[in-house]
Amino acid sequence: MEVTIVGAGLVGCLLACFLARRNHHVTLYERRPDPRQEGADRGRSINLAISERGIDALRRLGLDGKVLDAAIPMPGRMMHAPDGALTFQPYSADRSHAINSIGRADLNRELLDAATALPGVEVRFGHRLTGLDERTGRLEFEHGKTETARVVIGADGAYSAVRARLQQLPGVSFRQDYLDYGYKELTIPARNGAFAMDPGALHIWPRGRSMMIALPNPDRSFTCTLFWPHETLAALDGPQRVRAYFAEHYPDAFELMPDLIPAYRDNPVGHLVTMHCSPWHVTTESTTGSTTVGLVGDAAHAIVPFYGQGANCGFEDCVELDRCLDQAGDDFPKALELFERRKADTDVIARLALDNFVEMRDKVGSRMFLAGKRVEHALERVLPGYASRYELVSFSTTPYAGVERRVARQRRIVAGAAAALLALGFAARRRRGLVRTRDGG
Amino acid sequence: MEVTIVGAGLVGCLLACFLARRNHHVTLYERRPDPRQEGADRGRSINLAISERGIDALRRLGLDGKVLDAAIPMPGRMMHAPDGALTFQPYSADRSHAINSIGRADLNRELLDAATALPGVEVRFGHRLTGLDERTGRLEFEHGKTETARVVIGADGAYSAVRARLQQLPGVSFRQDYLDYGYKELTIPARNGAFAMDPGALHIWPRGRSMMIALPNPDRSFTCTLFWPHETLAALDGPQRVRAYFAEHYPDAFELMPDLIPAYRDNPVGHLVTMHCSPWHVTTESTTGSTTVGLVGDAAHAIVPFYGQGANCGFEDCVELDRCLDQAGDDFPKALELFERRKADTDVIARLALDNFVEMRDKVGSRMFLAGKRVEHALERVLPGYASRYELVSFSTTPYAGVERRVARQRRIVAGAAAALLALGFAARRRRGLVRTRDGG
Repeated sequence: MEVTIVGAGLVGCLLACFLARRNHHVTLYERRPDPRQEGADRGRSINLAISERGIDALRRLGLDGKVLDAAIPMPGRMMHAPDGALTFQPYSADRSHAINSIGRADLNRELLDAATALPGVEVRFGHRLTGLDERTGRLEFEHGKTETARVVIGADGAYSAVRARLQQLPGVSFRQDYLDYGYKELTIPARNGAFAMDPGALHIWPRGRSMMIALPNPDRSFTCTLFWPHETLAALDGPQRVRAYFAEHYPDAFELMPDLIPAYRDNPVGHLVTMHCSPWHVTTESTTGSTTVGLVGDAAHAIVPFYGQGANCGFEDCVELDRCLDQAGDDFPKALELFERRKADTDVIARLALDNFVEMRDKVGSRMFLAGKRVEHALERVLPGYASRYELVSFSTTPYAGVERRVARQRRIVAGAAAALLALGFAARRRRGLVRTRDGG
Repeated sequence: MEVTIVGAGLVGCLLACFLARRNHHVTLYERRPDPRQEGADRGRSINLAISERGIDALRRLGLDGKVLDAAIPMPGRMMHAPDGALTFQPYSADRSHAINSIGRADLNRELLDAATALPGVEVRFGHRLTGLDERTGRLEFEHGKTETARVVIGADGAYSAVRARLQQLPGVSFRQDYLDYGYKELTIPARNGAFAMDPGALHIWPRGRSMMIALPNPDRSFTCTLFWPHETLAALDGPQRVRAYFAEHYPDAFELMPDLIPAYRDNPVGHLVTMHCSPWHVTTESTTGSTTVGLVGDAAHAIVPFYGQGANCGFEDCVELDRCLDQAGDDFPKALELFERRKADTDVIARLALDNFVEMRDKVGSRMFLAGKRVEHALERVLPGYASRYELVSFSTTPYAGVERRVARQRRIVAGAAAALLALGFAARRRRGLVRTRDGG
């Protein structure tokens, strides 16, 4: 089968690998130039936290080793209080579990190499999609070039041009929700050739309504990201205000950022959006056969980054679509119809990612939260089969919706156990004559 | 001020009238040809139910008399049971209150006449918007024509081209929700020159998951609309099935529809969508001044038709925007910023319209519902200031959000009164020795 993928980012490249393995011919159209060429725009140095779902997808293609070699494991969070005090909190009761910091650009180059090394995969850079007729499969690109395809898969990200076409069709429900927050990237460079902070953690500066995070890079720098209300970003409009604000709220990081002022001034403000779309595919039958247009990854379900699951979820999409192709005997319209079942899972992670923003920026700094996590990890060690939501999301491939069902079930069991313990304690105290009851016991 | 309105439908024309009265110069761009010309596509014969909000807007421009002269008042609902039994239920305790059936095309021609009669208003038909730069106010139309405007207002309906541009901007949250229902129009023609059913009612055939409604026309026909699940529409794929289905579920209407089969076959299936967008306007400041692009009516907040409020709400938008221009001294960026407050109201009517679908297709047929309505009307007559939600939505200009607050307050009062009545009754029975109490009374 000839398959056209729009977008040669992380998910497009990985999907191309899965499809090539099934002996399909894949053409990827990418609007940007080849990032592996000299002089290509490197874009922003966005870091990803690759965890089990992403690793599992890579493992199925034998790509996990090479990708993880270039990654830095982060087994926990390091919280930075306003006074500079540090608190480390492991992500898992199992100390061998870690999420892995990796640069998006590096990973993209790796996956481009992997895809183009496979027979039947071709990538055409500098092709920006400007039009799509979902009935005929006719694609129009900037500068007038056109192509026709029977199977078109949009892997072209949160602002997908393929989805923009689907959205115009009656019956396609759609939602884009912007947070009233912007993000801006900063850097903590290496100091004397060494990491300026512990590289074995995802660093968080929780500040109530705002926060900053930092992830380590192989060059021993950290990429920091501010997540601030737009009004805060707008209010800090000069070097003095920026300096004063950082000195007050992020004093330890401030000392580690010699380029804060130009970086803050020059780096753009990014937006945080959640996209929902339903259905993700449209099939048109005609006398000459069927044409199918579908969506995967951020194009189908962009989420905010606060659970570190955007790329992991997109990679898992590829695994699931591969599974659907197994079930559908490589009939793409059927497989994309089956793939709609994944929406139950992506809806869950979209919600959890939003919820986790509040947790990261606000709750992780509190003693109650830390104590709760310690109890949860103790339960994980003591109760066979008990696992926290974070554990299941980050260190398992349990479908996201299944995670939520299991977390709800566990809560009921633990609440029941707690009630039983209370009752037992009550009975014991009563035997010891410590409790008076109405019937005179 | 020069103002460009995209869309010369109901809301675009009415807004042009309001703006012309404020001495603005208004150019309306409409993609269709002039509907007042011979041979123009008349479109589907959609009926509207104009009620107080719409009338109030027309009244402010002196247009209410002429519009209502061509309308047919419907003081209540007529429910058709599957066995043909009829139940009439007034919309209001005040029998003089009625909603008014009027054809969309007729009303549009009326408003086009009204707008073009005003100095400073020009309508350019056959101009389909294909591009818009919100920063420069540059508009592109089909066939290569371009214009530039400082103030652009999209009144171009649920599938607004102006909104399509705003949706692409970061920070613009958006949502389109399709119901899994289609609608299809049918006709009950006049019989022997007379209405075949009572013209003084909105007719409803509630059938649980499905329904049909019918509104009277001045030519003594009724326009019927089926609201059916897509699967039902798809399943009735031949004349025999259509005939059998109508004979079973809509036997009384079936007898009044001689053209049922060709109409059912030829009339398209419409879709039912709710659109949410936020913000509704974007202003760009430059050294040469500001450019503002905003949305009104369905372009800003398309709703489903089940509360009969789509056009009424759009007309009320014009009144509110006129009020905002008063407050802002005709500064459009400021006025459109103020106009964002209306979203609290349009969100409410969007929800009520969805809720009312369940009421119309399912509940209006039940005895409980009818009894509840009778109690509600009795309360309206007995309690000073008490008004039902339907009364406030359809026969007042209380802002929609205010309606919901008032309904909630009334419910609390009535619940309190009911509790007090119960207690009084209890005390009375106790005095008469009819109630035994624990303390031996």
